[in-house]
Amino acid sequence: MSPDSQPTAASPEARESRRFGRRALLTGGAAGAGLGAALGFGAALGIPGLRDTPTARAVEFGGESLPCHGVHQAGITTPPTAHQRYVAYTLRPETDRDALTRMFRILTGDIEGLTSGVAPLADSEPELAARPARLTITIGVGQALVERVDPELRPKWLAPLPKFSRDRFSGSYDGGDLLVLLQADDPLPLAHAARMLDRDLRSFATHSWTQQGFRQAREAEADGTTMRNLMGQVDGTINPRPKDEDFADLVWLTGSGTASDGNPGWLAGGSALVFRRIRMELDTWDQIDRPGREQTIGRTLSDGAPLTGGSEHTPVDYEATNEFGLPVVPAYAHIRRARSEDLGERIFRRAVNYDDGGESGLLFACYQRDPLSQYVPIQERLDELDLLNEWVTHTGSAVFAILPGFTPERGLGATLLT
Amino acid sequence: MSPDSQPTAASPEARESRRFGRRALLTGGAAGAGLGAALGFGAALGIPGLRDTPTARAVEFGGESLPCHGVHQAGITTPPTAHQRYVAYTLRPETDRDALTRMFRILTGDIEGLTSGVAPLADSEPELAARPARLTITIGVGQALVERVDPELRPKWLAPLPKFSRDRFSGSYDGGDLLVLLQADDPLPLAHAARMLDRDLRSFATHSWTQQGFRQAREAEADGTTMRNLMGQVDGTINPRPKDEDFADLVWLTGSGTASDGNPGWLAGGSALVFRRIRMELDTWDQIDRPGREQTIGRTLSDGAPLTGGSEHTPVDYEATNEFGLPVVPAYAHIRRARSEDLGERIFRRAVNYDDGGESGLLFACYQRDPLSQYVPIQERLDELDLLNEWVTHTGSAVFAILPGFTPERGLGATLLT
Repeated sequence: MSPDSQPTAASPEARESRRFGRRALLTGGAAGAGLGAALGFGAALGIPGLRDTPTARAVEFGGESLPCHGVHQAGITTPPTAHQRYVAYTLRPETDRDALTRMFRILTGDIEGLTSGVAPLADSEPELAARPARLTITIGVGQALVERVDPELRPKWLAPLPKFSRDRFSGSYDGGDLLVLLQADDPLPLAHAARMLDRDLRSFATHSWTQQGFRQAREAEADGTTMRNLMGQVDGTINPRPKDEDFADLVWLTGSGTASDGNPGWLAGGSALVFRRIRMELDTWDQIDRPGREQTIGRTLSDGAPLTGGSEHTPVDYEATNEFGLPVVPAYAHIRRARSEDLGERIFRRAVNYDDGGESGLLFACYQRDPLSQYVPIQERLDELDLLNEWVTHTGSAVFAILPGFTPERGLGATLLT
Repeated sequence: MSPDSQPTAASPEARESRRFGRRALLTGGAAGAGLGAALGFGAALGIPGLRDTPTARAVEFGGESLPCHGVHQAGITTPPTAHQRYVAYTLRPETDRDALTRMFRILTGDIEGLTSGVAPLADSEPELAARPARLTITIGVGQALVERVDPELRPKWLAPLPKFSRDRFSGSYDGGDLLVLLQADDPLPLAHAARMLDRDLRSFATHSWTQQGFRQAREAEADGTTMRNLMGQVDGTINPRPKDEDFADLVWLTGSGTASDGNPGWLAGGSALVFRRIRMELDTWDQIDRPGREQTIGRTLSDGAPLTGGSEHTPVDYEATNEFGLPVVPAYAHIRRARSEDLGERIFRRAVNYDDGGESGLLFACYQRDPLSQYVPIQERLDELDLLNEWVTHTGSAVFAILPGFTPERGLGATLLT
């Protein structure tokens, strides 16, 4: 596929011809769609007269697409989808600056097409791209890619994390020069898009690793239900929300600094991703009684409420003591060790489950401005002492700079390469 | 877990206490449920007054369960679900007839619980079992298991298939003494149930292989949409339907014969499963132009209509010729080679996609009374000549006897072991 012969999906002609894209744009957890009405959703519901109600929710969500353009890339604050795939690549030795420019141009066009439901021209199975089911594709770059462009551009945090004492890396899931993160509510368009991008990248890079994750299926749960992990815990209750006043300060780089302070201009609108593969020892976890497991976390298993009472989103009372004067949330409970008094020491998590039929655990992803001052101190505390450590092992680790968002006029990687 | 201390979920007490199960029973592709109303579905839709409409379709389908009891096991003619997992086990040498009796008793109770949304007593994460999302668990037995009970009971077809010339088995996905087939619309309860059963089985058998498959996500497509495979083809158009008059004759064993004619009494209500792992060579498939790919199959890629016209379900006109007098559906097209003039030479297919991040293809499953007279002649024709052969390779194969259905009174495996 030659980038020169390939009109991007964002060209006016391509946009005119989008047969399936943008039928329904979602901007948050709540759906708004006219698709359901178009498909006779009212009839499917058996509710006479609902057919033409434009507020009806789309049941056949395959046609929903999320915009890929913006100040930030899609896939970070967009609603969590049921399926995720992280794919890492290693650049070929001959992939120089010019080749990277071509590579990002091709990626930009294909991401615009695939996420909107319009297959790239070179796509031989356009039907598999036609129903993206909220597909997003997010691109991150690793240390070696940035250094190949210019070592001076590497933010100080874009390097392997300091080694923690309990890290047990297998070597199969570490690092990477380029990250392609695909997320969708349907595994079919996701698998197809991953293959199309893999074909795009083959002349520039070699495949390094793939990790696939899932959370509850779309529509299986009410919108906004917090994920359960495979230990049975409600996972992700305390998390900065995109609507929070300080969210941008925690997550988005501004580009107002320098590479050596971690905030170089080319990353304005980008973020720093820490990605960890965390194996769960479920066999031994099962052997602990329920109160023991709840004390380990600091929350109930039934609904994720703190042990100090209330419901899932009730603030934890870390001062509360029981009749013996001991803290209700144990000193080394996971939630107590994970938290910091320093409000800047927070991260935006997007964890999902993995289960490769024999080994299972969590694909832990978190976004922030600076892993060295946000993720690392949290993980240092956990690594040092966390009741949960007995049942979790970090077996892979990678850090990527998530590129700024892109527009039809200024493609992916433009700020890095121009 | 001791089977003696474990009440089955089918006991009256357990049934009384089913907190989540059977909220909605599905018996076909169409949903009927009051759950949506209970969960405030009308409110979610933004349709005032809909909240209490009992006909509203459940959007949060996680709570739906399918009955596990019946003449046949669930998971064969029940609606295809989004996610499937095939897990094969090899019996331990010491697993004798008594152990098998215990093993099936445990499996029966846990399948009753897990599929209805009531976690087995020994389940330490009952929350992960609470929303089964149409989970079914289907049990098959292999040659060695039956022979361990009594070699005289083995139906003649329960053995490795004759080797086809194009078979290229990797050795990683062949055979097995026991099959656990899990299907659900949500990967979370499926992963959990697989682990619970794995724990059940550990003292009786060792894990042999796991294969995971998917089709379009639940609610992403309209009900009854035929699956697309990763080659982009509409896959599974011509298939016997459970409502067809001759379906039972093709698929369900009657037990009215003997092991040597393939229809022993203990299999009344059971079926024969042929399971094949079929790798797709998508890179070279992509290089063929669209007409070439359509001629290979005999159907259009856009909607699966036969090349002789009409729409997906229009019968194929195998006699039609083009302006040059050549057949419109080529002599060696896949659909022509797969079909037989003999109506008894048909199978009931349940194929799904797999994509292990690098290799992808089809997990091909078909049900029948006798693989030797149904699957084998079809595959012999395809193996000999099929335009599609260039792009597909069979890399694994297994045959299982799917046990008859079970009831609260007569558990799984009862007919084999008593």
